[in-house]
Amino acid sequence: MARTTGSDGEKTEAAVREAAVNLIARFGYEAMSMRQLAAEVGVQAAALYRYFPTKEELLFTLMREHMEGLTDAWETACPISADPVQRLSAYVENHIAFHIERRHATHVSNMELRSLSPERLTQILRMRTAYEKELRAILRDGAEAGVFSIDDTGLTAMALIQMMTGVIVWFRPGERLSITEVTATYLSMTMRLVGAGTDGETTHDGARALGRARDAAAL
Amino acid sequence: MARTTGSDGEKTEAAVREAAVNLIARFGYEAMSMRQLAAEVGVQAAALYRYFPTKEELLFTLMREHMEGLTDAWETACPISADPVQRLSAYVENHIAFHIERRHATHVSNMELRSLSPERLTQILRMRTAYEKELRAILRDGAEAGVFSIDDTGLTAMALIQMMTGVIVWFRPGERLSITEVTATYLSMTMRLVGAGTDGETTHDGARALGRARDAAAL
Repeated sequence: MARTTGSDGEKTEAAVREAAVNLIARFGYEAMSMRQLAAEVGVQAAALYRYFPTKEELLFTLMREHMEGLTDAWETACPISADPVQRLSAYVENHIAFHIERRHATHVSNMELRSLSPERLTQILRMRTAYEKELRAILRDGAEAGVFSIDDTGLTAMALIQMMTGVIVWFRPGERLSITEVTATYLSMTMRLVGAGTDGETTHDGARALGRARDAAAL
Repeated sequence: MARTTGSDGEKTEAAVREAAVNLIARFGYEAMSMRQLAAEVGVQAAALYRYFPTKEELLFTLMREHMEGLTDAWETACPISADPVQRLSAYVENHIAFHIERRHATHVSNMELRSLSPERLTQILRMRTAYEKELRAILRDGAEAGVFSIDDTGLTAMALIQMMTGVIVWFRPGERLSITEVTATYLSMTMRLVGAGTDGETTHDGARALGRARDAAAL
C-alpha cells in the first residue's frame, strides 16, 4: 500500500511539473496560481504543497532540473577526444537536441529568472556559468591550437548559445526542415563563425571534421 | 487650455507606455493589472482607458510601435549602396543599437506574443516578417554575387537575428565592453558566419568592407 502511494505520489509530482511548465510558458509565472495549477492536475491545492511548499520552490525546482538535465546530457555527449572541432560539434548537437525537446521548459528557464530569490538566482546562474564555461574552454582550446579564429571567447560563447537556443522560437517538427537538417546547418554556421575554415577553402582539419559531423548529423 | 490638456495627455500617454513596458518586463503581461499600472503612473484606472480601451490594446500598441520603430530605424540606416557587405554591416549595427537601447520593450515584444488576439498577432508577425525579409534579401544578394557562402538563407537570417537580439540578455552599459566593441565583434562574427572571408585569408572585397565597417563602429 505504501509502495502504491509512493508510486502515485511520483506520478502526481511529475504531472505537477509538466502542468506547471505549460501554464507558466502560457501565462507567465506571476500570473499562474497554485489553485489554477491544482485544477489543471486534478488535485486539491493543499496536495500541491506536499510536493512544493511554495510556488517559488516549484519554479526553482523546474529551473534546477532543467539545468541539471542539460549538464547531464552534455556529460554524456562530450567526446573523449581533445579535438576542439569534435568537441564543438558535440556541444552544438547536444544543445540544439536538448532545447528543441524542451521548448516550454526553456522559455520558463530563460524568462522567469526575475522571480527567483537572490540566493536561488545565484544558484541557477552558477549552473549556467559552469555549462557556458565548457563552451568557452572548447573555443579557447581551438583558438590556442590555431584551429579556430576568435576575437573574444566570451562574446563568441554567448553569440553561439543564443543563436542555438533561438531555434526553439521558430522550429516546429514536421515543417520544411527536420531537426537533423537544422542541426547540420547550425553546425556549418557555427564552424564558419569560429573561423574553422569555410567550405572547400580551408587548409586545416576543421573542414574534414565538420564533414564527419555533418555525416553524423545526417544519419 | 485645450492645448495644455492635449500636451498633458501626451505626457500621460507616454508615461503609461513606459510604466507598462517596465511592469510587463518585470511581472509578465498576464500578471500586470490596469489598476497596478494606473497606480504606477499616478492616475485613476479610468483615465488609462481613455488612452487604451483594453489591456490588450495597450500591449498591441507597445508591440506595434516597437516594430515600427525598428523598421523606421532600418530605413534610415539602410545604405544606398547595393554592396551586400555594406548592407549587412548596416543591418547588424542598426539591429544591435536599436535593441540594446530598448531592452525591456524587446523582452515584452518577444515574450508576450501569446497574449495577442489572432488578428493582432498576425499583424505583428507580418511586420516582423517584412523586417526579416530585408535581411534575407541581403543574404541572398550576397550569395548570388559570390560574396557570401550560405547554406540556407532562412536559417541564416534567424540565426543572425537571434544571435544579435541575444546581446540584450547579457549586455550592461559600463561593464567590460562598450557597445562599439560589442558591435565590432558581432560584425566580425556575422561576416565569418556568412562566409564573407576570414581575417587576412579572403581574396574578395568582403574583408576590406568589413574593415571599413569596423573602423566605422570604432568611431
